[in-house]
Amino acid sequence: MPLSRTRRAEPTPPVLSLLSDFGPGSLYVGLLHAVIAGISPAARVIDLSHEVPPEDVLGGALSLADAIPYLPVGVHLAVVDPGVGSSRRALALRCGDGRILVGPDNGLLSLAAAAAGGVQTAVDIADSPLAAESVAATFHGRDIFAPVAAHLAAGANLLGAGDLVDPATLVELDLPAARVGTDALEVSVTAVDAFGNLALLATPAQARAAGLVEDGPVGIEVVSRDPDEPLDALRISGGLRRRRYGRWGRTFSDVAEGRLLLHEDSTGRLALAVNGASAAVLFDVEGGARLRLTR
Amino acid sequence: MPLSRTRRAEPTPPVLSLLSDFGPGSLYVGLLHAVIAGISPAARVIDLSHEVPPEDVLGGALSLADAIPYLPVGVHLAVVDPGVGSSRRALALRCGDGRILVGPDNGLLSLAAAAAGGVQTAVDIADSPLAAESVAATFHGRDIFAPVAAHLAAGANLLGAGDLVDPATLVELDLPAARVGTDALEVSVTAVDAFGNLALLATPAQARAAGLVEDGPVGIEVVSRDPDEPLDALRISGGLRRRRYGRWGRTFSDVAEGRLLLHEDSTGRLALAVNGASAAVLFDVEGGARLRLTR
Amino acid sequence: MPLSRTRRAEPTPPVLSLLSDFGPGSLYVGLLHAVIAGISPAARVIDLSHEVPPEDVLGGALSLADAIPYLPVGVHLAVVDPGVGSSRRALALRCGDGRILVGPDNGLLSLAAAAAGGVQTAVDIADSPLAAESVAATFHGRDIFAPVAAHLAAGANLLGAGDLVDPATLVELDLPAARVGTDALEVSVTAVDAFGNLALLATPAQARAAGLVEDGPVGIEVVSRDPDEPLDALRISGGLRRRRYGRWGRTFSDVAEGRLLLHEDSTGRLALAVNGASAAVLFDVEGGARLRLTR
Repeated sequence: MPLSRTRRAEPTPPVLSLLSDFGPGSLYVGLLHAVIAGISPAARVIDLSHEVPPEDVLGGALSLADAIPYLPVGVHLAVVDPGVGSSRRALALRCGDGRILVGPDNGLLSLAAAAAGGVQTAVDIADSPLAAESVAATFHGRDIFAPVAAHLAAGANLLGAGDLVDPATLVELDLPAARVGTDALEVSVTAVDAFGNLALLATPAQARAAGLVEDGPVGIEVVSRDPDEPLDALRISGGLRRRRYGRWGRTFSDVAEGRLLLHEDSTGRLALAVNGASAAVLFDVEGGARLRLTR
Repeated sequence: MPLSRTRRAEPTPPVLSLLSDFGPGSLYVGLLHAVIAGISPAARVIDLSHEVPPEDVLGGALSLADAIPYLPVGVHLAVVDPGVGSSRRALALRCGDGRILVGPDNGLLSLAAAAAGGVQTAVDIADSPLAAESVAATFHGRDIFAPVAAHLAAGANLLGAGDLVDPATLVELDLPAARVGTDALEVSVTAVDAFGNLALLATPAQARAAGLVEDGPVGIEVVSRDPDEPLDALRISGGLRRRRYGRWGRTFSDVAEGRLLLHEDSTGRLALAVNGASAAVLFDVEGGARLRLTR
Repeated sequence: MPLSRTRRAEPTPPVLSLLSDFGPGSLYVGLLHAVIAGISPAARVIDLSHEVPPEDVLGGALSLADAIPYLPVGVHLAVVDPGVGSSRRALALRCGDGRILVGPDNGLLSLAAAAAGGVQTAVDIADSPLAAESVAATFHGRDIFAPVAAHLAAGANLLGAGDLVDPATLVELDLPAARVGTDALEVSVTAVDAFGNLALLATPAQARAAGLVEDGPVGIEVVSRDPDEPLDALRISGGLRRRRYGRWGRTFSDVAEGRLLLHEDSTGRLALAVNGASAAVLFDVEGGARLRLTR
């Protein structure tokens, strides 16, 4: 038997993706990598995003879910965790498509789990035997989530990672729904990217249902800058309700430089952009703002 | 025959470098990594830079070209792409030294191609069979450039990636040339780094030709802050033309703390720094500004 | 002899960690990766942190030392180097636990070396035969530190990397000590993270010695915003000395939203946080500020 027949194909390394609100290039991210390298030296670690705004669980949940179709099946760690050190549960979830999601039980994993075929098995890893021996009250990313995720990527059994939890009891996200009117669509801004584009939590179908027309004009006004902001104060400050006009197009260059574009972005949802400039600066808004789009 | 003779040296993994204006740690960067990991799990992916200012094609082109001598030969993906989704071509280029460059046909790859021995073969990958099945109009990085680059890194044939293009028809960059006068050098700022150092598009030889002397004094004034800014308005605002004085030295500590240093930076071109502080803040400029250096 | 007995366990790739003040996602960081990939293609490179504030040697030294217990033993490169190109030495240090630290001789490595079992062997690599042939005066990270670190990660002998140096002559850090009074603790802020949390250079034991009580109230006032700021000017500006009140707790949710929390952070030292907001914004301070904590 020739020796060459004994050569096996190089095994594909396990994929472990990371998402957090720790800030790009921060020591917190570096410590996740350090812990993972010690436990699962063969894992291919992917920094999916670390620029989730601080404590923005909704933004993190959407980013993770949007990435699922593009990520190889693996272990997907997410930490946006305002409740760290409190009694909130810590989760490792096996999904229908074989992925394992690891993170706090605050809704962060819920949209990704749905995108990955739903939760098949849920385990509470708050007191996991796979966690570090000593756990800092404010950094479960380093001491619980990363070690557990790394052990799972290295082949550890999910059932040995913690105590079984009924998937029906997991925290769900409260999504700020779009309001579809007969002549207007009211939507939430969920993210602002490096170009100042505003991601909106609504679909092209919802915009059509509200009377907006592809390749047609769109009027945009700010309804509120902050989910907690009282509407009355907004109505008094005149500038806020000023309506600006743009066009529903396909890509940035479909409008002249400096003009507003409504488009279906790479997530399949709607977004607002200014060709060559920042829609976030133009409207002076960030994640959480509500906009009103009209024909 | 002893078994040990059958051991082969571990093959070096293919290198795939990434450069973009997506912002460090952003989900857009993470999605490039995710797509690449699925197609070319063995590739060693290097984040060359993701802090190119939004849509700054010149800045991205210079960064990529400056990195070529330090990068192992591999596939080098660059995405600074204001024209995404328009009719601009998408390119994969094989260079004289064996590198493959992938990115939009807007000049972004042109300086790197020259640094890599010139373009030998050019292919338009806008409709590549190696791209994703479904292509978002605003994110060709994820749906065209990354999958094609990953397939090429994994060994796919360049000629199968798209349609041959005449290299002579590729878009060239319009470089803002330095103006060498008898007693002054007018130069463009091409980049600002984390320290506030200003990278200038001119060489030490050009400075010498304009009468500046190494280890000698240098006067610096802002000519314009923006390539599109009218000069007359600038002349009226007095502060702008105020001349500051520094020294042409070798490294930061060659001038006292807080003093201005003109030096040859690590690219071999000129740069302005303030020892212990930010030249960008001192002059209140960013990329695109024009400066005038005098003896 | 069955073939299977000849299979060896996959060797764990050498770990090479990077820490710098170059800024996340910057080309400077990318060039370190490029150089390392060329010399040590098998190394697993970990970006420990690149958001050390520009030229903040103390902040970098603390980050590196805090990471040591979480990093696999390997080569640990750190570049925060205001004196680049001057006559300061460049170091490669072998520590008691087998780690190798590489960086400038300005104190940056000193705390990590102590955490890693102390310096056993020190070598000056300023003129290392393992460095690049041509060395830019302002980027020893690319031309000296990264190539030397990569060669050491690939197995090169430390003694061949440069000239032996007496460890007793290495530059030590000047740590801004906490002042423990009978009813107050005066401490330095060493870092601000993405959440606006303020890391303090003092231990819980020091706070207790100063009369502060766990689960009890804490008063906090700014003593100075800048180590070089004159105190008298501060006393005149009334707002600065305004005392704010918080609580010494265990984690963020131990105080109401918007309230101040003093806690032992994940480094084992003290930190100040605001639940759901930024302590850095509340006090308008950054690294280097001095705070006074009272019962």
